[in-house]
Amino acid sequence: MRKILVIGSGKSTSYLIKYFLDKSKSEKLFIIIGDINIENAKSLINKHPNAKAITLDVFNNEARAQAIQDSDIVVSMLPARFHIEVAKDCITYGKNMVTASYVSNDMLELDKAAKEKGLIFMNEIGVDPGIDHMSAMKVIDKIRDKGGEIILFESFTGGLVAPESDNNLWNYKFTWNPRNVVVAGQGGAAKFIQEGKFKYIPYHRLFRRTEFLEVDGYGKFEAYANRDSLKYQKAYGLEKTKTLYRGTMRRVGFSRAWQIFVLLGMTDDSYTMEDSANMSYRDFVNSFLPYSPTDSVELKFRHQLKIDQDDIVWDKLIELNLFNPNKKVELEKATPAQILQKILIESWTLDHDDKDMIVMYHKFGYKLNGKNHQIDSTMVCIGDDQTYTAMSKTVGLPVAIATLDILNKKIKTKGVQIPISKEVYNPILRELEYSGIQFIEKEVPYYGYNPLHI
Amino acid sequence: MRKILVIGSGKSTSYLIKYFLDKSKSEKLFIIIGDINIENAKSLINKHPNAKAITLDVFNNEARAQAIQDSDIVVSMLPARFHIEVAKDCITYGKNMVTASYVSNDMLELDKAAKEKGLIFMNEIGVDPGIDHMSAMKVIDKIRDKGGEIILFESFTGGLVAPESDNNLWNYKFTWNPRNVVVAGQGGAAKFIQEGKFKYIPYHRLFRRTEFLEVDGYGKFEAYANRDSLKYQKAYGLEKTKTLYRGTMRRVGFSRAWQIFVLLGMTDDSYTMEDSANMSYRDFVNSFLPYSPTDSVELKFRHQLKIDQDDIVWDKLIELNLFNPNKKVELEKATPAQILQKILIESWTLDHDDKDMIVMYHKFGYKLNGKNHQIDSTMVCIGDDQTYTAMSKTVGLPVAIATLDILNKKIKTKGVQIPISKEVYNPILRELEYSGIQFIEKEVPYYGYNPLHI
Repeated sequence: MRKILVIGSGKSTSYLIKYFLDKSKSEKLFIIIGDINIENAKSLINKHPNAKAITLDVFNNEARAQAIQDSDIVVSMLPARFHIEVAKDCITYGKNMVTASYVSNDMLELDKAAKEKGLIFMNEIGVDPGIDHMSAMKVIDKIRDKGGEIILFESFTGGLVAPESDNNLWNYKFTWNPRNVVVAGQGGAAKFIQEGKFKYIPYHRLFRRTEFLEVDGYGKFEAYANRDSLKYQKAYGLEKTKTLYRGTMRRVGFSRAWQIFVLLGMTDDSYTMEDSANMSYRDFVNSFLPYSPTDSVELKFRHQLKIDQDDIVWDKLIELNLFNPNKKVELEKATPAQILQKILIESWTLDHDDKDMIVMYHKFGYKLNGKNHQIDSTMVCIGDDQTYTAMSKTVGLPVAIATLDILNKKIKTKGVQIPISKEVYNPILRELEYSGIQFIEKEVPYYGYNPLHI
Repeated sequence: MRKILVIGSGKSTSYLIKYFLDKSKSEKLFIIIGDINIENAKSLINKHPNAKAITLDVFNNEARAQAIQDSDIVVSMLPARFHIEVAKDCITYGKNMVTASYVSNDMLELDKAAKEKGLIFMNEIGVDPGIDHMSAMKVIDKIRDKGGEIILFESFTGGLVAPESDNNLWNYKFTWNPRNVVVAGQGGAAKFIQEGKFKYIPYHRLFRRTEFLEVDGYGKFEAYANRDSLKYQKAYGLEKTKTLYRGTMRRVGFSRAWQIFVLLGMTDDSYTMEDSANMSYRDFVNSFLPYSPTDSVELKFRHQLKIDQDDIVWDKLIELNLFNPNKKVELEKATPAQILQKILIESWTLDHDDKDMIVMYHKFGYKLNGKNHQIDSTMVCIGDDQTYTAMSKTVGLPVAIATLDILNKKIKTKGVQIPISKEVYNPILRELEYSGIQFIEKEVPYYGYNPLHI
């Protein structure tokens, strides 16, 4: 039996563990799931004979080292900042390791040691980052293999509510960490390249500069720019590509309404508000509006933001209970962002039988034999239920498949890496297809920034 | 002879030195001006027998200590961050000290030592902070002395171009550090109190939430909120005052146009732009706008910012040469804010015979015998020329007068302080009046936030 140690058993591990259990007999696997709280792990294992849950405090150096020493490979599903101690133990005890998180600087520093010990540290192999890397590099390599030159690469991902569960005016529910949604886009201007020109969008304009996308069978989406669209320029070999853009997908209309929160200052996480606990939702809104002894909060709001009375944006705000004078914030020393998050969670939490959805859209513009072409590649994944979500499927399955491929020596390249080589992505994408995670690629006319083709 | 050591001889010292020289005979003063570069000091002294300029590097501990030891009182006109070493020497050698800068935490920590040594460390006695403290506390104390209760305090200051030199569409020229103007308002939401309610304005809304003010004989002004209007709440004893607001004055229309720079992201100082040196002004603007192969920068700009073709805001932008494709930025690794500053300096630098202007406006609402009243207090100071500016007059004169008052033991209170006691402000305000810096106080009806008095 080959022992796989999975550290952490949070929301995104359901599919990962299911995949291991399903393969445990044929692949001779024994799965050990370590977490500080093993209730969720136990329920996911469901008394399967080839698995056990162990109580593991990742900050207990001795226990962590022992568990890692006892395993053949380690999968860390901890929050990203906790990987590094696990990684150091993997170096010490000579174990391969897989994570779905961004490669931190600390992790990158282990590259040399990992190579010296002949170890594979695979990272960014979940969803955004992960499936996006693999599906993009597959098309990029295909274009290059036939002699094409990439002139445009745009990549968009969204974690959304599935169409069958989409029943609010925002067409949005929280399917992942709400905090990340509330502060999304903060911390500096978004930067990207269009036709060789560097472009910058400050945070307070980000949600007014969206792009539109249409996915066959799923309708229209919009996307706002990620902070750094140039992040993988070098890794993908796109140094000469004239258009590089990465974005986050929402349903059309979300961003225009979200911009209202940004403009008012409700997404600010840099200061705490006076007496926040005793504020009503209405007080919260009013603190961003001028004082008036006569005018209503509603009218001041509409006037400040120039919202017509028949604008759908207004209904979206009403739906959130934003002007309610009776609902209290009840959070001590809270930032605007924390208060907004609380208000949104009340409206945007998935119902018991709601399903989530992951959508991905890549555009590849390329030049071949003097002519411009374009391939669009799209993927939609819908969750089964609240345990087996699309998020856990798209994060967990590639992690699980990569883990097996490393155990089975299909992945051979050593060191700290992300899944951008054929050796890694080809077998994984094929296996993902069996599980229903499939990209639809189609040739479309290349219009670039001249859609009327004039 | 009593020896006054003035450290630093920059733009704001002309009136200060003139005042000392004029009084040097009657008051038996000898003025030593220390600076790393003594050209300006020499020209200000103009061979006056009761003064000399010495080369002084404030970072040379020995030379600094020697100069301080040799003096009877020290005036530090250095940039605020350099005061602290001077202050420590003043403790060591038992010298009183005067600065026009905000009390830093380092300075505040010297309070105990200063008191123990019986020393006076007077700070914030220039203009904003300085004259504003004194003129405000004079009215506040007067209201309190007759039994009134302050219910509203608003205070506004502006450094502007004098009406006779006001010849651009922005009605603005740089009369002080341009950088402070470009990044004004950044670093967090503005916070103030209106009728007992805390109000917050994020940076990107600051210039759209202005107040209007009218100064007799000088017309209309507008003001945007300072970051922390509550800064002097405790010092002024205004803990129960229901409206507290401090703001910066501009001519009407400045802020609406400035907001365009904020919205586009041109005032951002947090990142450097790619290839900034070779950018034209037009390229700079275009980097904040979407790419288009056909639409002009002008039309994209107007569309993004929703500017009508006959809006005066447009003329203000044209006046700055903002769309010029031939003018190069020529700044390596520059932030947007640095580039914008360069563009603005070309248009907003005072001409040789231009004059500057300092405007101040305080509003005091108070309750007396059950009735609401209001006093408005205004001051306008216009510079003589480019050496004897209004800025140097309003900064330098109160510093100079306070220095003499300390020498003459009219100011007796020890320790690190700001000029908010009668002992300090009464004689200084009287002396300032002789020099033409005069507040006009008038009783006006108290309307609070109900201007129609309905």
